[in-house]
Amino acid sequence: MFEITTQMIQVFAILVAFLALGFAAWLYTWVKAQPSSNARIAEIGEYIRKGANTFLKREYLVLARFTAVAAVLVFVLLPHPIWAGDITKNIWMAVSYIFGTILSALAGKIGIQIATIANIKSAEAAQKGIKPSFMTGFRGGAVMGMAVVGTSLLGITVVLMLVGDATSLLGFSFGASSLALFAKAGGGIFTKTADISADLVGKVELGIPEDDPRNPAVIADNVGDNVGDVAGMGADLFDSNVASMSAALVMATALGGIASKNVIMVFAYAAIGLLSSIIGVATARIGKNGDPNKALSSSTYVTTAVFAVLTALTTYLFGFQWRIWAATAVGLIVGTVIGIATDYFTNDNKPPVQEVAKASKSGPAFTILSGFSYGLLSCLPALIGIAISALVAFKVCAPLGAATGQEAEYGMFGISMAALGMLSIVGMIISNDAYGPIVDNARGLAEMGGFGEKVIAITDELDSAGNTVKAVTKGFSISAAGLTVIALLGAFMSEVNTAAQELGLVAAGESLIKNFDIMNPTVFFGLIIGVAIPAIFSAMLMLGVDKNAQRMVDEIHRQFDTIPGLKEGREDAKPDYDKCIDIATTGALKELIPAGFVAIVSTIAVGLIGGTQAIGGFLTGNIASGLLLALLMSNAGGTWDNAKKYVEAGNCGGKGSVAHKAAVVGDTVGDPFKDTAGPSINTQITVVSLVSSLLAVIFLQFSIF
Amino acid sequence: MFEITTQMIQVFAILVAFLALGFAAWLYTWVKAQPSSNARIAEIGEYIRKGANTFLKREYLVLARFTAVAAVLVFVLLPHPIWAGDITKNIWMAVSYIFGTILSALAGKIGIQIATIANIKSAEAAQKGIKPSFMTGFRGGAVMGMAVVGTSLLGITVVLMLVGDATSLLGFSFGASSLALFAKAGGGIFTKTADISADLVGKVELGIPEDDPRNPAVIADNVGDNVGDVAGMGADLFDSNVASMSAALVMATALGGIASKNVIMVFAYAAIGLLSSIIGVATARIGKNGDPNKALSSSTYVTTAVFAVLTALTTYLFGFQWRIWAATAVGLIVGTVIGIATDYFTNDNKPPVQEVAKASKSGPAFTILSGFSYGLLSCLPALIGIAISALVAFKVCAPLGAATGQEAEYGMFGISMAALGMLSIVGMIISNDAYGPIVDNARGLAEMGGFGEKVIAITDELDSAGNTVKAVTKGFSISAAGLTVIALLGAFMSEVNTAAQELGLVAAGESLIKNFDIMNPTVFFGLIIGVAIPAIFSAMLMLGVDKNAQRMVDEIHRQFDTIPGLKEGREDAKPDYDKCIDIATTGALKELIPAGFVAIVSTIAVGLIGGTQAIGGFLTGNIASGLLLALLMSNAGGTWDNAKKYVEAGNCGGKGSVAHKAAVVGDTVGDPFKDTAGPSINTQITVVSLVSSLLAVIFLQFSIF
Repeated sequence: MFEITTQMIQVFAILVAFLALGFAAWLYTWVKAQPSSNARIAEIGEYIRKGANTFLKREYLVLARFTAVAAVLVFVLLPHPIWAGDITKNIWMAVSYIFGTILSALAGKIGIQIATIANIKSAEAAQKGIKPSFMTGFRGGAVMGMAVVGTSLLGITVVLMLVGDATSLLGFSFGASSLALFAKAGGGIFTKTADISADLVGKVELGIPEDDPRNPAVIADNVGDNVGDVAGMGADLFDSNVASMSAALVMATALGGIASKNVIMVFAYAAIGLLSSIIGVATARIGKNGDPNKALSSSTYVTTAVFAVLTALTTYLFGFQWRIWAATAVGLIVGTVIGIATDYFTNDNKPPVQEVAKASKSGPAFTILSGFSYGLLSCLPALIGIAISALVAFKVCAPLGAATGQEAEYGMFGISMAALGMLSIVGMIISNDAYGPIVDNARGLAEMGGFGEKVIAITDELDSAGNTVKAVTKGFSISAAGLTVIALLGAFMSEVNTAAQELGLVAAGESLIKNFDIMNPTVFFGLIIGVAIPAIFSAMLMLGVDKNAQRMVDEIHRQFDTIPGLKEGREDAKPDYDKCIDIATTGALKELIPAGFVAIVSTIAVGLIGGTQAIGGFLTGNIASGLLLALLMSNAGGTWDNAKKYVEAGNCGGKGSVAHKAAVVGDTVGDPFKDTAGPSINTQITVVSLVSSLLAVIFLQFSIF
Repeated sequence: MFEITTQMIQVFAILVAFLALGFAAWLYTWVKAQPSSNARIAEIGEYIRKGANTFLKREYLVLARFTAVAAVLVFVLLPHPIWAGDITKNIWMAVSYIFGTILSALAGKIGIQIATIANIKSAEAAQKGIKPSFMTGFRGGAVMGMAVVGTSLLGITVVLMLVGDATSLLGFSFGASSLALFAKAGGGIFTKTADISADLVGKVELGIPEDDPRNPAVIADNVGDNVGDVAGMGADLFDSNVASMSAALVMATALGGIASKNVIMVFAYAAIGLLSSIIGVATARIGKNGDPNKALSSSTYVTTAVFAVLTALTTYLFGFQWRIWAATAVGLIVGTVIGIATDYFTNDNKPPVQEVAKASKSGPAFTILSGFSYGLLSCLPALIGIAISALVAFKVCAPLGAATGQEAEYGMFGISMAALGMLSIVGMIISNDAYGPIVDNARGLAEMGGFGEKVIAITDELDSAGNTVKAVTKGFSISAAGLTVIALLGAFMSEVNTAAQELGLVAAGESLIKNFDIMNPTVFFGLIIGVAIPAIFSAMLMLGVDKNAQRMVDEIHRQFDTIPGLKEGREDAKPDYDKCIDIATTGALKELIPAGFVAIVSTIAVGLIGGTQAIGGFLTGNIASGLLLALLMSNAGGTWDNAKKYVEAGNCGGKGSVAHKAAVVGDTVGDPFKDTAGPSINTQITVVSLVSSLLAVIFLQFSIF
């Protein structure tokens, strides 16, 4: 058995992080070096790149103002009000917070940078076959995956090394989450506004193909893929990853201080997770006429296996607790099972999607009803998986605390490690996920560049694999977020107890609260209010898309009506792409702020009314309805999307049939479900959990009940 | 101050119950004595009556078998396994259970009996103006209201007098609920199968009017209104009413025995609630050209006011606790507020419905997205209302237990009284609710009888008032069910503790469990699984409707294709109404059983895996997701229904416009939302709560964790 210190493992983590960043740089250069020659595509690609950067710039300007205000509040109030203690801690907290927001924003920026290059290269490569096109798209996605996970590991390690206090990680994590909340919501509104409007006028009303360059919203649609699915998703998974590591570290530190073996183990596992993802990405291959679906999933399995083996080896070598390894492994296994179950409900080779397509023959109402019902059913495996992994992880790890009366603490630590296990392969997941919008864009560019049917068919196949993978990774990340917030519930309780000791409410070493009792009416009050928040939040986002899309549809109509020759596709008739991008941008920025505020302000309101007990209930209610709605919306959306694709592939009457029209309606409903509201709920529940932990000391001192 | 005993108040309750039943009989005679002369209507009315009775007979046959099996299980296992104690209690429990199922079934039967008469009479009366038509419809509904509440009060009182043990009330209540679960689900599937299929082929494909006698499904549609909205709803509200009274009585008895003032108070308030409803019904009036909406709501307000005053008076005269009166009043007030909020989201004079209609101009996807979003938003006021009334009721009543250390028990009793308060005017609510399908049928009969546009316009106005009232009463009853199941959570805990004492696990007077701690992983496990159940349950019901409707659409097509002259409306071409009724019946019976089983079996599974702690979490998760989904589905459905009506009234393009077609899609999606899945969830969560309480002793002895 080898001895190892916290500092040594932190250095190791930093090295792995740099390895990942270096690998990302190499991949970036590789993608950039791929040939491209088509002037038309270069022009359109430039439009997309500019549009995406414009949106990002305007969004970050708005968020910078929000962040500045929030940073001041963090400084004044956290970890204690500045008038009540050591001001140094408040400075570090504010710095950690700002650092979190900057790294989260950077993750989005890097994603946009590579995605808007890789889409062009992948489209061009498709002319040479599926293999080069896939590799370009996949390696483009991997730049994002490596960069996001590398920076998050680096950020966490640096913050902990500098500040030496795990609570500051909550500040860092809150920075990441609050930015992710708005980035995901804003990007989600933008992308679906453009997507829906473009489809509605182009495909449905005028019957012109998807991605037809005559459509004024077509560039906005492609920009949307980047700002929503790449930048937003990057910020989101950066945040989940940071939150799960922070929760594990807060609890490990509370158990045995920062030098303890558990802390070392968290760093070791996180670094190994990233290392496994590097190996998975580096070994990803596709045959000459290979199946992109298989290539993506086999590299995921490689990552998973490498992680399981390497962590076991480390545990053996350094004498970590096997029980904690088991909890991590449970998370990993359950995550995989949830992924497979999600695939069942959203894959067009499986009954649910085909049933929805069949139901569509009776009209759109049946598309909606059946897709919604399967969406509800699809929650079951994921919820059972979360419930079982939480229970097993807790029960397996609790005995570690038997000698010191810390069963509950070790149990909760086990849950946080299960979440870490589920997210361990996040580098691979982000790579797969970012691959989706890149090849989706490539498909659009191939169409607009006039590359012909054969090339479009190749990009179509790549795109379809992207859709399936996307649904699977979404199920994965929602479940991991679920486990993380359960762990954050534990973190909240330990923050409350620490604060109570500092305030002198209880003696050192004593706990003020030991449980959140459902029969306590204050807890129950919080719980019921907590149930409402994800519902309100997602409703506001969807109404935002709805309103914004209506504005955009009007604009598209205006352009088709007033620009002579546009409908007919005359050479000299150019649509005003920028105007559509501007509408989507302005609308998204207008609609995202209130939804984010509702989540944060309601948490503060419940805490000030009912105190820490109400917050315990509130977080629970939030998790309950948040998980349900997020799974329902993501999966129903995926089912509808693929039901449409299934019909378009010639089933149930094929393109132009009644079933097709109905399936398009389903897809349109599903778009904001799966790309705006559903995945934003993830971030919403994480933000609410972090706000609660951070404000624990305030709720303890000032509350009505 | 006057002295009063439990026996005296029970006699009073029985007298009031008989007064209600007598009043129901008088109203029944009155309705029956209304003139009817049109042979065509009589013929069609007879079809409807026969169809409804056939369905009911076949459904009750299936349920009789289920009940017989369940009664044997109840006898063998409850309140203890027969091998482990006094068998007399088991006999009484089984008898109470069967009694509950019979009365619940009777409530449905009475409803069908009067509704299938009142619909004809109301249609005929419409020829003379709105006033006689309204009075006939309303008094028909009131027969149902009086009969249901009268029998439930009678049943509860008799069971408690005979058995002398409040636990037996849970058996009675479980009987009522288990029948209601299947009646509501079966009726809900039947009614929406018929409604959707008739609309889809008739209105959408062929463009013939609603209720056109050429449509083979038109009679099935009218039958559906009766078996779903009258019989199913009657069983449902019978069950809610019984459950809330049972919960209150179980807790009152646990606090101070059966002779205590609290028990007397529960009976007094329940009897006064019924008395107030009698007064409300008796004084309901409408002017000659009056507004039916106003007439319905003003009689509801009369009932509310009478209840508040009479209970205050009784409290003063008999020296009941003012704090408990206050808890009851809070329930009543919050119920009214929730009703008003629901009205806001579903009334076509208010922004949400109009926005949905406006969004429909862009196509059905926007109808769905906006309606769904408003449905999500509409959960907020109801959830806040439930949360506040639970918190306030608890806090107001808890001090009553300060002297004896029973704060929590008194608090939970307060919550059960708030539920009772919310449901106190249930007699009035059922009357209003049953009025809806009666006048809906009357509209159909007026159309089929060829009474002309003016008469149809009158029935349309009555029908529209019915729709609004229905949405309001649904919000009311879902919220009351929410409070009731919170109270049942308390009942479950007291059952567990009683059982633990009887099993010798703790000393007499001691409690085995004092809380359900969210941080306990077993509780959390149950909670997450509990969240999934309402989702699965409602998905199964909706898929049932979906499948069944597809079968029926095929049959309607077959008839139009093979019966010569049917489409053209030739005199001699008669559709085969019975075949459609048969399909709806067979399908509904086939689909209802699995959904009900899932609810019951999952409860047993969770209890056997995680024991009583897991059940505590399970019930909480069930309440959380059940309330969310029930409110969402009922309200979104109501919004879509009225958005369609709003468009049909000439807005946003009126009939035949793009908006109209989209709104019809919304309405079709909303139908199973609001009439099948949404309101069934009520019953589902109640059943799960009762099963848990009844099996407490089993879960205590046999569980894995």
